[in-house]
Amino acid sequence: MSDSEFDLIQDFFSGLDQGASVRLGIGDDAAALSLPEGHLLHISTDTAVEGVHFLASLPPADVAYRSTMAAASDLAAMGAAPLALLLSLTLPEADRVWLEGFYRGLAEVCNALGVPLVGGDTTRGSLSLTVTVLGSTPADRFLTRSGAQPGDRLCVSGTLGDAAAGLAVLSEQLAVDESVAAFLTTRYKRPAARLALGEALRSCATSCIDVSDGLLADAAHVATASGVGLEIDSVLLPLSEAMGSLADSERSLNWALAGGDDYELLFTLPSSMPLPSGCTEMGRVVAGSGISCDRTPERIGYDHFRR
Amino acid sequence: MSDSEFDLIQDFFSGLDQGASVRLGIGDDAAALSLPEGHLLHISTDTAVEGVHFLASLPPADVAYRSTMAAASDLAAMGAAPLALLLSLTLPEADRVWLEGFYRGLAEVCNALGVPLVGGDTTRGSLSLTVTVLGSTPADRFLTRSGAQPGDRLCVSGTLGDAAAGLAVLSEQLAVDESVAAFLTTRYKRPAARLALGEALRSCATSCIDVSDGLLADAAHVATASGVGLEIDSVLLPLSEAMGSLADSERSLNWALAGGDDYELLFTLPSSMPLPSGCTEMGRVVAGSGISCDRTPERIGYDHFRR
Repeated sequence: MSDSEFDLIQDFFSGLDQGASVRLGIGDDAAALSLPEGHLLHISTDTAVEGVHFLASLPPADVAYRSTMAAASDLAAMGAAPLALLLSLTLPEADRVWLEGFYRGLAEVCNALGVPLVGGDTTRGSLSLTVTVLGSTPADRFLTRSGAQPGDRLCVSGTLGDAAAGLAVLSEQLAVDESVAAFLTTRYKRPAARLALGEALRSCATSCIDVSDGLLADAAHVATASGVGLEIDSVLLPLSEAMGSLADSERSLNWALAGGDDYELLFTLPSSMPLPSGCTEMGRVVAGSGISCDRTPERIGYDHFRR
Repeated sequence: MSDSEFDLIQDFFSGLDQGASVRLGIGDDAAALSLPEGHLLHISTDTAVEGVHFLASLPPADVAYRSTMAAASDLAAMGAAPLALLLSLTLPEADRVWLEGFYRGLAEVCNALGVPLVGGDTTRGSLSLTVTVLGSTPADRFLTRSGAQPGDRLCVSGTLGDAAAGLAVLSEQLAVDESVAAFLTTRYKRPAARLALGEALRSCATSCIDVSDGLLADAAHVATASGVGLEIDSVLLPLSEAMGSLADSERSLNWALAGGDDYELLFTLPSSMPLPSGCTEMGRVVAGSGISCDRTPERIGYDHFRR
């Protein structure tokens, strides 16, 4: 193959740029998109660096899938419907096999999200990806971190800690049965942004954030933004069957409290509102500040510069 | 200072997120922006890697300014008015002095562009920046690379080759008088995206691209996208007084033809349309394909994977 930057982009990324909102896709100086009338645009960008945000051994399809889904999770936290994405890829060499795997994962995640890839850049350097996601909501109906009120119920979707345990399996820090390993590693490699839930929460939740840095770290962002305290009951944390099967329950609880990368939604609900299906109430909003939990994990959250 | 990722973002980047279009700035999962009614959104993203796209010795304020202006130049090429930008910064360490310099340049370029910085990410790794720019145009009035027609005039704004010569000065490949050096290096370090010209060209140009890879390389993109040929008269290329003063006129011409980073606009005009002020007609659109020029430079364009 020709290894020129332009050919790379042409060959690998230009087939995913079709969609109802796309007026101009890949190949010009910028993409052009239409937004539903009266809607707001929501936009977020996330960089994933090899060795920091994902294992060097992770197959390229999973690198593409996981990084893109992680970025889309920020739209779920706003209650936004995804509109399009852009991908900037920096890689040390133009390796066709690697790029083909990466493209497969990218096509899969675009399909799962139902969005076109409308732009990007390909540059030479250490492997990293920056994914920019665009979404939309009606102008006055979106979620933020800042609306939690004392008396609200603190809730979370799905189960917690699976991705962190899956990462431990992949990095040979945890040995488990094949079926448990498959579940946990899939939760790490193929997360699912809770986009439908996010949209549903627009009509009931008072605040929302996605669990990317770890439950306690992300809950702390909500507490700070809302000017409230959050109380978490560790016994109520939703654990998957796989997590429940692990021998070291202390370690599981640590992952549930402090492991990142689950991409579930943490949200607050007025007490009058019914709990959405698939979600768990595991605490409450109180007057005050900060997080209180009956258990303290070994490492709170995830912070690149403290690692 | 605390060197945590969150503090970095809070401390350094959260002061630039105010603007008429901003409904929600930095600090939540995504930013929320409003678009003028009936307008299209234009979006583009560019990654700049230290040692590939900018010299390791470039001061951080210039890194921020130059990379952001280069990204905004893609909006100029579409005829779009800039709306907002996002910046993902990957850096090896949380160096306060470096970050303060970087922030200064970023604040300057946001001010020059009149746009807010509404989001981003800060991660650890080799130094690189990904800048995402958003702009808007009326729904049916934007520029592309694909509308050039045989008979159109081929035109360019400003002067060509200055940035490449400036880079040669900075990397000690070219020794010149202080005032000439100051002009050329400023053209490299502090480019000016031709946004006002881009907006004006919406009503007259048939195609447009910004000169980022080098005149011949970018002209080739227009020729391919439009399905036409482009003829360039080297004697008509606009050179600055500084470039005209250089001893080696062959080298100057090479920079004008093949040097990148000028961020001028290359556009085609129907013969009936007057040339905008500050622009030069230097060729024509013909039936056929490819670029023809009476001179061949040593190196055509700029390509990371061929370097």
